[in-house]
Amino acid sequence: MLRLSPPNFKRITQALSFDAIYGGGEANVAVSLANFDIPVDYVTRLPQNEVGEACIQYLRQFGVNTKKIIRGGNRLGIYFLEIGASVRPSKVIYDRANSSIATAKADLFDWDKIFEGITWFHWTGITPAISQNLADICLEAVKAAKQKGITISCDLNYRSKLWKYGKEPSEIMPELVKYCDIAIGNEEDADKVLGIRAPDTDITSGTIDAEKYQTVVEEILNQYPNLEKVAITLRGSISASHNTWSAILYDGKNMYFGPKYDIIPIIDRVGGGDSFMAGLIYGLLTYKDNLQSALNFAVAASCLKHTIVGDFNLVSKEEVLKLMEGDTSGRVSR
Amino acid sequence: MLRLSPPNFKRITQALSFDAIYGGGEANVAVSLANFDIPVDYVTRLPQNEVGEACIQYLRQFGVNTKKIIRGGNRLGIYFLEIGASVRPSKVIYDRANSSIATAKADLFDWDKIFEGITWFHWTGITPAISQNLADICLEAVKAAKQKGITISCDLNYRSKLWKYGKEPSEIMPELVKYCDIAIGNEEDADKVLGIRAPDTDITSGTIDAEKYQTVVEEILNQYPNLEKVAITLRGSISASHNTWSAILYDGKNMYFGPKYDIIPIIDRVGGGDSFMAGLIYGLLTYKDNLQSALNFAVAASCLKHTIVGDFNLVSKEEVLKLMEGDTSGRVSR
Amino acid sequence: MLRLSPPNFKRITQALSFDAIYGGGEANVAVSLANFDIPVDYVTRLPQNEVGEACIQYLRQFGVNTKKIIRGGNRLGIYFLEIGASVRPSKVIYDRANSSIATAKADLFDWDKIFEGITWFHWTGITPAISQNLADICLEAVKAAKQKGITISCDLNYRSKLWKYGKEPSEIMPELVKYCDIAIGNEEDADKVLGIRAPDTDITSGTIDAEKYQTVVEEILNQYPNLEKVAITLRGSISASHNTWSAILYDGKNMYFGPKYDIIPIIDRVGGGDSFMAGLIYGLLTYKDNLQSALNFAVAASCLKHTIVGDFNLVSKEEVLKLMEGDTSGRVSR
Amino acid sequence: MLRLSPPNFKRITQALSFDAIYGGGEANVAVSLANFDIPVDYVTRLPQNEVGEACIQYLRQFGVNTKKIIRGGNRLGIYFLEIGASVRPSKVIYDRANSSIATAKADLFDWDKIFEGITWFHWTGITPAISQNLADICLEAVKAAKQKGITISCDLNYRSKLWKYGKEPSEIMPELVKYCDIAIGNEEDADKVLGIRAPDTDITSGTIDAEKYQTVVEEILNQYPNLEKVAITLRGSISASHNTWSAILYDGKNMYFGPKYDIIPIIDRVGGGDSFMAGLIYGLLTYKDNLQSALNFAVAASCLKHTIVGDFNLVSKEEVLKLMEGDTSGRVSR
Amino acid sequence: MLRLSPPNFKRITQALSFDAIYGGGEANVAVSLANFDIPVDYVTRLPQNEVGEACIQYLRQFGVNTKKIIRGGNRLGIYFLEIGASVRPSKVIYDRANSSIATAKADLFDWDKIFEGITWFHWTGITPAISQNLADICLEAVKAAKQKGITISCDLNYRSKLWKYGKEPSEIMPELVKYCDIAIGNEEDADKVLGIRAPDTDITSGTIDAEKYQTVVEEILNQYPNLEKVAITLRGSISASHNTWSAILYDGKNMYFGPKYDIIPIIDRVGGGDSFMAGLIYGLLTYKDNLQSALNFAVAASCLKHTIVGDFNLVSKEEVLKLMEGDTSGRVSR
Amino acid sequence: MLRLSPPNFKRITQALSFDAIYGGGEANVAVSLANFDIPVDYVTRLPQNEVGEACIQYLRQFGVNTKKIIRGGNRLGIYFLEIGASVRPSKVIYDRANSSIATAKADLFDWDKIFEGITWFHWTGITPAISQNLADICLEAVKAAKQKGITISCDLNYRSKLWKYGKEPSEIMPELVKYCDIAIGNEEDADKVLGIRAPDTDITSGTIDAEKYQTVVEEILNQYPNLEKVAITLRGSISASHNTWSAILYDGKNMYFGPKYDIIPIIDRVGGGDSFMAGLIYGLLTYKDNLQSALNFAVAASCLKHTIVGDFNLVSKEEVLKLMEGDTSGRVSR
Repeated sequence: MLRLSPPNFKRITQALSFDAIYGGGEANVAVSLANFDIPVDYVTRLPQNEVGEACIQYLRQFGVNTKKIIRGGNRLGIYFLEIGASVRPSKVIYDRANSSIATAKADLFDWDKIFEGITWFHWTGITPAISQNLADICLEAVKAAKQKGITISCDLNYRSKLWKYGKEPSEIMPELVKYCDIAIGNEEDADKVLGIRAPDTDITSGTIDAEKYQTVVEEILNQYPNLEKVAITLRGSISASHNTWSAILYDGKNMYFGPKYDIIPIIDRVGGGDSFMAGLIYGLLTYKDNLQSALNFAVAASCLKHTIVGDFNLVSKEEVLKLMEGDTSGRVSR
Repeated sequence: MLRLSPPNFKRITQALSFDAIYGGGEANVAVSLANFDIPVDYVTRLPQNEVGEACIQYLRQFGVNTKKIIRGGNRLGIYFLEIGASVRPSKVIYDRANSSIATAKADLFDWDKIFEGITWFHWTGITPAISQNLADICLEAVKAAKQKGITISCDLNYRSKLWKYGKEPSEIMPELVKYCDIAIGNEEDADKVLGIRAPDTDITSGTIDAEKYQTVVEEILNQYPNLEKVAITLRGSISASHNTWSAILYDGKNMYFGPKYDIIPIIDRVGGGDSFMAGLIYGLLTYKDNLQSALNFAVAASCLKHTIVGDFNLVSKEEVLKLMEGDTSGRVSR
Repeated sequence: MLRLSPPNFKRITQALSFDAIYGGGEANVAVSLANFDIPVDYVTRLPQNEVGEACIQYLRQFGVNTKKIIRGGNRLGIYFLEIGASVRPSKVIYDRANSSIATAKADLFDWDKIFEGITWFHWTGITPAISQNLADICLEAVKAAKQKGITISCDLNYRSKLWKYGKEPSEIMPELVKYCDIAIGNEEDADKVLGIRAPDTDITSGTIDAEKYQTVVEEILNQYPNLEKVAITLRGSISASHNTWSAILYDGKNMYFGPKYDIIPIIDRVGGGDSFMAGLIYGLLTYKDNLQSALNFAVAASCLKHTIVGDFNLVSKEEVLKLMEGDTSGRVSR
Repeated sequence: MLRLSPPNFKRITQALSFDAIYGGGEANVAVSLANFDIPVDYVTRLPQNEVGEACIQYLRQFGVNTKKIIRGGNRLGIYFLEIGASVRPSKVIYDRANSSIATAKADLFDWDKIFEGITWFHWTGITPAISQNLADICLEAVKAAKQKGITISCDLNYRSKLWKYGKEPSEIMPELVKYCDIAIGNEEDADKVLGIRAPDTDITSGTIDAEKYQTVVEEILNQYPNLEKVAITLRGSISASHNTWSAILYDGKNMYFGPKYDIIPIIDRVGGGDSFMAGLIYGLLTYKDNLQSALNFAVAASCLKHTIVGDFNLVSKEEVLKLMEGDTSGRVSR
Repeated sequence: MLRLSPPNFKRITQALSFDAIYGGGEANVAVSLANFDIPVDYVTRLPQNEVGEACIQYLRQFGVNTKKIIRGGNRLGIYFLEIGASVRPSKVIYDRANSSIATAKADLFDWDKIFEGITWFHWTGITPAISQNLADICLEAVKAAKQKGITISCDLNYRSKLWKYGKEPSEIMPELVKYCDIAIGNEEDADKVLGIRAPDTDITSGTIDAEKYQTVVEEILNQYPNLEKVAITLRGSISASHNTWSAILYDGKNMYFGPKYDIIPIIDRVGGGDSFMAGLIYGLLTYKDNLQSALNFAVAASCLKHTIVGDFNLVSKEEVLKLMEGDTSGRVSR
Repeated sequence: MLRLSPPNFKRITQALSFDAIYGGGEANVAVSLANFDIPVDYVTRLPQNEVGEACIQYLRQFGVNTKKIIRGGNRLGIYFLEIGASVRPSKVIYDRANSSIATAKADLFDWDKIFEGITWFHWTGITPAISQNLADICLEAVKAAKQKGITISCDLNYRSKLWKYGKEPSEIMPELVKYCDIAIGNEEDADKVLGIRAPDTDITSGTIDAEKYQTVVEEILNQYPNLEKVAITLRGSISASHNTWSAILYDGKNMYFGPKYDIIPIIDRVGGGDSFMAGLIYGLLTYKDNLQSALNFAVAASCLKHTIVGDFNLVSKEEVLKLMEGDTSGRVSR
């Protein structure tokens, strides 16, 4: 997607220019992993015009393999992002209907070929929220991946402004999640996507209580025994400029609590969840026997994301490790 | 429409920001007339979101009455404009399918009410090129206007990248043009829209011969006797930065040749034809018995447009008159 | 007025460009009300040149009726605003002497015609601070409005750098306030303009105690029994980037305390009081029997103003209501 | 003066920011000379605020001695410059009334002290055009300079938008010019300031004939025998983006014709005359016995000015010499 | 190299920001070829820091394979580019001494591995101009390439500000050129690098006569019989904003003259020669039996380069073909 | 040095432009003092090109005397500064090797002449960290200054990325410090440069305890009895956007504790220590018998620095005094 944001905290109605970047759920995970030196292929469909070309170039610079991207269709999805501050929330206006990916047909994707040499497949709940076509394609993909023994991860990623094609998430997502090995979500996804809710929670109150989400992850694993691990990111929204950030991870046996960071000010919070997912994938690949470290890496990585302009988490492993080891001082490195 | 242009002659693939303005054929005419102190209402349909609101604010600043704009639908049409220079042409990528206006239904427009107190109605060939719906709405509008004795003007405005809904211009436009009093076009519109072509012309050769277009305007009046006046703008394309600019006007009796200007460098050539149309409407209203002056005003006004950033011709009557009277020296006014 | 601000927290001496917007006390109130869909006319005097035209266009985009603006005089008033941060305060340099409005003569304003169809008239203490002419014009205006039964509101708005024409506020303002129905001020206006002071207050200490200002509003109503309601905004200045914000409202019977917001970071605090005034006018018109809601709307609206670039409070009613209902979380709306 | 220009060829009504520089007739000459390593003091009066400070810093960076600048008064003069292109002229809106220098009193300037160690004094016709005060101060200055044997140069510099205080240039300037040794003007100054006109000239026709101006400089020397040398710059205005540029110099005996340059595109033509004056001063000081070289240096220097953003001619002697020697090829220097 | 340019035609001394891109002779050729869908690897040495990383990302976005780039050394070479206009030339200040590539040792490059699967090797005269090390490395490279039967092309590329390490081009380049199959140069390279000069030529005169350069290419082939083809680009420098552009190609039998283009205005002329080289490589690969077409493609491609911001020729094959076929009209593509 | 920073919190790899300013340890002190109206000469060596010229102009605007700067050598040192936020630290990449000053030879500096009329000499630990040459030059300078009875101050200023020429700070600095009268450092300099460490301190923990640094300053005075005063700045690094700031001063008899400020947000923390040094020099010169006031001035001045864009502390004495007197409220000054 093309993201268009008014510069310098302006409102959309004030803007005579838009900062432009290209990104989106899965792309954000892909770039973050490429940045951690994990080889990664990105699959989508983009229009055969300069805007599609610009998107490919944008992704390619970060080392993501873009050769599997299919060209065709009429347009690149767009979203307008008005960046909020203090008591004024950020605002997203989607203009993604009829995008090249939304109108893609299943036979465009030859999953056998796409999955050649692949060991991990990640998808998000945004994709099946766009169109029935995409929900079907997702299902084909997870089935094909499962059959090939590929690890499958999923970000539940509920978006209230999507799901406009006549289906509720509850009609689509459970079937898809059944093929997954790892699922993540934020504090409201489990509720909205899977109907599993933490007791007594109010996400607009500013604080968030990790304890309360233990029951959520436990219940997810109960209902989806195929899942090996479930993680929930925990965002305390004190204001648009000040959040707390943490996560919990559960593997059916142990409950792991990540560190809790205070992020003030937030430079760009879009892609926070995606950077957590990428951090968790990296963490699980790297700290195989140490889920606590895997989680800590994921939380630290995604904490840093909030300080990076754009959707992508452009931080190095070394920077994540430094924060993960406890240095939040922000002292100049020179 | 929202127009997105890379700044400073960058290509779309190079842009990390887009200059953003709102405009489009009829809007451009409306603003230009408002700028000449002609009261003007603008009718379209815009989405009920911040992007639609931004468009309304943008138009409103120039004194156009926006109260007749209908809100609804899903999106504002977008076009990407890559501004060329020298031997590199400008490039337009349309992303206007499924816009609020493209999906408008006829019953949204109560032409009786819209035309209350109106004496002149202007439309362009871009509108019926978008969808069958809009072609139908256009037909309703010109019929209603005709019935009320409103003067109707039309810019033939051929756009090869539109007309995607299964009809050729020749199937739609002639019927619409039959209701018009005044028509304008550029050197290729008559050919592409009405099938009337100047002999031996090659619009990419750089030069353009006004004489050759006499037969075109004569033939148009022959075929459309309802038309009182026809004008053709004459653009000599020496390069993307250097054009010549003139026009001819024919009223069935006399042929009027406008002055010919050399425009170098061109700051922004989009909206050139629209500014000619607005200049001609203003000229015809002001110089009732002097078609030569009306034409000269229109040519001078639209010549100046090429020096203004954006789609709109933000020049005053006084500035047009100064140029019309022959001062092309560009000497500092101080 | 034209406001010129160095971008990105630069100092005036560092600036090689200035961000430019048009605004000022009464204009800010007008735009805020137009934004809440209240029809509003703005009266002032602007020079007959491109700078005056730019000001009109700027106001017009927000839906304010600018047709009553008088053209003439030599210049638009200017102010330079250096935006501070943390321990460095913002700084205002006025360059408004001899502006078109400052040099306006009383006979330019035909109040009978200006007040046609008008039900509410708002003025601020800035206007009579500029010149004797303007103080006289103000007096004529409030007298005319009173006679026509128009509700009159006033923002006391003390500016120490004005009042240069030989009069003290205490010589001018009391006479003007006597014609008003509603008055607002901030924590120092009552003292500087009307000589009514809260006990033991130090506005540079960072905290501000609503209780202490009860005696102020009571005393104002005592001295100006014509006033139906008085409100005081309460700004706690912790730093240039961090304020608390609240207000009290008194109607002679009950004392209403608004919610207290923490604003961090402040994006642009200019126009905070004006947005409170507009919010209060809207609140009083909308919540006729519920002064607490009227006050809460005004405080929430003006709290949001601090997050908007420029002088104007470009927020919707819906956004104010969301904050007024307690959601300060700044969670992304998507 | 503070110069405020909309960026990127925008009109004033389109600008949401202004590029800001500080300059003005005499300052432009001063900086240009400092740039050629001539020690130079600049005398004016600036307000005691950040805007005045910014102006001083701006001048000081180029090596001009600013210590003789007097601080006081209320404001820095401002001018808005809309930069034209092609057939659209640049436009200047002055907002300089009541500036610190315009309101300066004669006794602020101790010419004995100011002229200590000074060998050359330059002033322009802009200064006495502003106020009677300044005309008087100018007269005092030239008298004092004359008495001390200082060479005096003057740029006639007619500005139609000034001279608003009730005097015509012809009532003030002749008396002042009588004290000068060297005078320059452009093609219209001699006419407007001294009433000496070239026969059959039309400055808006685009071309300009050096021959015709011979009679002008001869007549000036006839009427002002105190002048040792007179020069006229010759600007052919083909468009706002394309000028020809040359000059003639006359010393009462010989007539010198400068080279004629084609300037396309013009980057910034403001300060063209000032850069010629500075080039001529430098040339006369350097090529004492070679008036042709002095003139050629002045024409080449001021030709280059048109390619420099801002009022100041920021080119080195070496660059002027290269052009003066005939290399107009613009080949990359690397 | 990192290229730092003041924006908007400012001089280096005026700049408070620099536009930043990454490029350089061979990189420019590489990106241009990648843009024409030719697979291309780029070999250099870059520092192991964020600046080196930024350079890699910049190249990677255009599809160049960056995996063969060696990391190490202390710094990325920098050059400051002041973009000229009209009579003011562009100016380059090199700050490339001690760059990672300049200090590279020969044993860092394993040419056997680098040349695996490679069929064409291109190098430029800039590289051996930097240091003896690099001259040696170049020699090793061309020897290795020759041995493997790889086609070798070379751009003579004389840079007067380089060659500071004690050797003249004539001591180094002839030996290197002996291994080449194809060589190109501009109108002064043959003279400065190989000592072969066109008779009676003055490159600063603005015009350039293709005929005169026939003897140059003939003489080059005489002296370097290993060369199969030699091309000379012909730049007529009318001003910094206006050049003519053409080229000749000689294969020992036939002399081919390219079309001659008028480029006005020039947006960015850096990389012009590199884009010609890339166009020629593409042309020779594509039009194997049609050297005229190969040359025409190269000239048209590099003509377009002058309209593209930055060092790289970001144009598509289709765009080159359109110009090559004669359409220089710059008409909007829509 | 030229400082290049990506705008708007972007990372270096994201930047397509760099904000550019000129500064560095001693230059920062010089400008700060000039800003407080202390006459100041700055001595360094800069290349004879436009980049060196730009640096001189930049310094000169603030009133620093640049006439003692020596021109020559090959390049200006550069550093890239990536400005951090929240948990992401700022990052500095030095590219200063082989700069004109680093390669300066001792005989370029005629200290007798340089020190003519000078009463105070300030140097920093950065200079001898660059090269043996510079360490030698420093030693010559302090010896010459000592001999002339000039007060010598030194900022220990440890930079871990310098000291690359084979010497440890402990081999060079003690000898230099022996000639000083006043030394300052931050919380880690004493340790790294002089080997004197505060017990139990961890500078990344966010808080900092002034008490613990008493022993450090006492020990410094013990070891360097030549020093009359030693000060340590105390930075509490809560995050990259939030620091506390204070300092202690010791004169061998009394220990003075400065006020402690909370700085949130930090606009630009580079030059913080330099602005403290300048504030202390000013304070010691102004409050001769009141070391507490001198210290308080220094702490307040440098606190304000953190709110100023760039390396230089562009605040007035009056602004420092206002903060020093306790007003941290940041209320608008108007």
